[in-house]
Amino acid sequence: MADIPLPTYDDIRAAVALIAPWVRRTPILEVDVDGRPVALKLELFQHSGSFKARGAFTSVLSAPEPPTALVAASGGNHGLAVAHVGHRLGIPTRIFVPEAAPAVKVDAIAALGAEVDRVGSTYAEAFLASREAAERPGVLALHAYDSFGTVTGQGTLGAEVGQQLPDVDTVLLAVGGGGLCSGVTLGLAGSRPAARVLAVEPTTCPTLHDALAAGAPVDVQVGGVAADALGASRLGQIAFAAVTEHDTASVLVEDDAIVEARRWLWREARVAAEPAGATALAAVLTGAYVPSEGERVCVVVCGGNADPAGL
Amino acid sequence: MADIPLPTYDDIRAAVALIAPWVRRTPILEVDVDGRPVALKLELFQHSGSFKARGAFTSVLSAPEPPTALVAASGGNHGLAVAHVGHRLGIPTRIFVPEAAPAVKVDAIAALGAEVDRVGSTYAEAFLASREAAERPGVLALHAYDSFGTVTGQGTLGAEVGQQLPDVDTVLLAVGGGGLCSGVTLGLAGSRPAARVLAVEPTTCPTLHDALAAGAPVDVQVGGVAADALGASRLGQIAFAAVTEHDTASVLVEDDAIVEARRWLWREARVAAEPAGATALAAVLTGAYVPSEGERVCVVVCGGNADPAGL
Repeated sequence: MADIPLPTYDDIRAAVALIAPWVRRTPILEVDVDGRPVALKLELFQHSGSFKARGAFTSVLSAPEPPTALVAASGGNHGLAVAHVGHRLGIPTRIFVPEAAPAVKVDAIAALGAEVDRVGSTYAEAFLASREAAERPGVLALHAYDSFGTVTGQGTLGAEVGQQLPDVDTVLLAVGGGGLCSGVTLGLAGSRPAARVLAVEPTTCPTLHDALAAGAPVDVQVGGVAADALGASRLGQIAFAAVTEHDTASVLVEDDAIVEARRWLWREARVAAEPAGATALAAVLTGAYVPSEGERVCVVVCGGNADPAGL
Repeated sequence: MADIPLPTYDDIRAAVALIAPWVRRTPILEVDVDGRPVALKLELFQHSGSFKARGAFTSVLSAPEPPTALVAASGGNHGLAVAHVGHRLGIPTRIFVPEAAPAVKVDAIAALGAEVDRVGSTYAEAFLASREAAERPGVLALHAYDSFGTVTGQGTLGAEVGQQLPDVDTVLLAVGGGGLCSGVTLGLAGSRPAARVLAVEPTTCPTLHDALAAGAPVDVQVGGVAADALGASRLGQIAFAAVTEHDTASVLVEDDAIVEARRWLWREARVAAEPAGATALAAVLTGAYVPSEGERVCVVVCGGNADPAGL
């Protein structure tokens, strides 16, 4: 594999300062899970309802020249985040979504003032259209996970967790394309070097798991309850480089366990996560990951962009 | 009015230590409301979904002798909290509710293992029945707001806010019977004497407002969107003594504004509050309360025990 430049901790600290006026420092909630203390990092309270706003603000604010327009391909959390950033910074924004994208997310993107282009039957086609639209001067295309700016921005969450929980040993988080996973791995490596990240994926979206097994990112069939947020069909190159450099471990959880973890968060703490946001907790609840005695565990609740009806 | 003994800050600090193993230190989320910074105290994440667990644990754990049974009258947050405390401490619990109490709350109380007694058509009748049941030796009756233990326990929230936000100027909170209001007033007076509490009530439940106008607690017609949590028909004696001693100010908000504040919390921060939990924020959103330039404002989101469908 070609040498992939990874964000350094200095890059991530610079991003922390750069985006500070625009993002929330999301709180930690300490809970008990079957008698074990677990710190929930409540990133669902971030602007646009997920951590994706960190990467999007970082990409835009660190661009060599202020972009005159933003484009992205995503009918989900990344699209919402880019639309939010365009809205806040006053930059015209186009979001390309597949024709089958759910109306509720598309409507939310449009409500932020972004132009929504429905293109093609797959994400890949929408992505291609977004890249064509980005070829005009001044237009910035924001990748959902596999770009330096995106990973650096998600890294601010890792730096923040290291500050909020200076004794943290393990940070569990859900993985889709790997932007959050690689960013937090790098941010945590700088702020709390003794800690490690544990990646959690649905068995129905095993993008990282299959990449680690194959020794490189590979195309993966994705589906299941968290696919709207975790359903990247291939792990990012940056993510793969970061997780292999840091020996990030991976575990899988069943869709049923994700649904139950989502209910647990509501029942025990009135936290209304989306399925992807409950995925990391599912690993603790099911015993797919069993912390050691005294291990300080943080679980990232990464998003809340789902209808809370039925919780 | 007879001289009412108010909890001191020492009483409240003792309660902080007493209940620490049983309650959560709930987090602060900093948000922007129309360009003004507001700190949300996310007490809806407390055990049982509201601050009421603080008072209930305090009453039970500070009883002169360990009670052999608990009773309370409430089809709402207090009932849920007492049932939770009984469940956690292994003490048999009976909750008296009016026959018309909503099935969803009654079911939640029963799910915690409490015996639910449906008595009478009004809260007053259920309350009377609970007092009769409490006349047996060893049985502890927990008042929803007008008892020393309850107010002392709610005071731990005031002490906590003073610690978490040492520069806070104003704490906005919703008022029903006044347990939270008086407790936080007293706890804040100890931890951050320069700060003051602003009481917010629905126009449909003006229990404190009318008591201040009349110079004493008076019976009030209650109804509206937050009545299941704020619909005490008369302010507590302890609350009245505390708010008059500390000159606590009161503002009213319309039911529509509460509904909109609840939607705002979900839309802007994915916080799924119940109507009572959004009532204090409504005062800021509507301009019923306008903070001064530089004023450090904290809004207590006091509960989340409502169906999140429709948010």
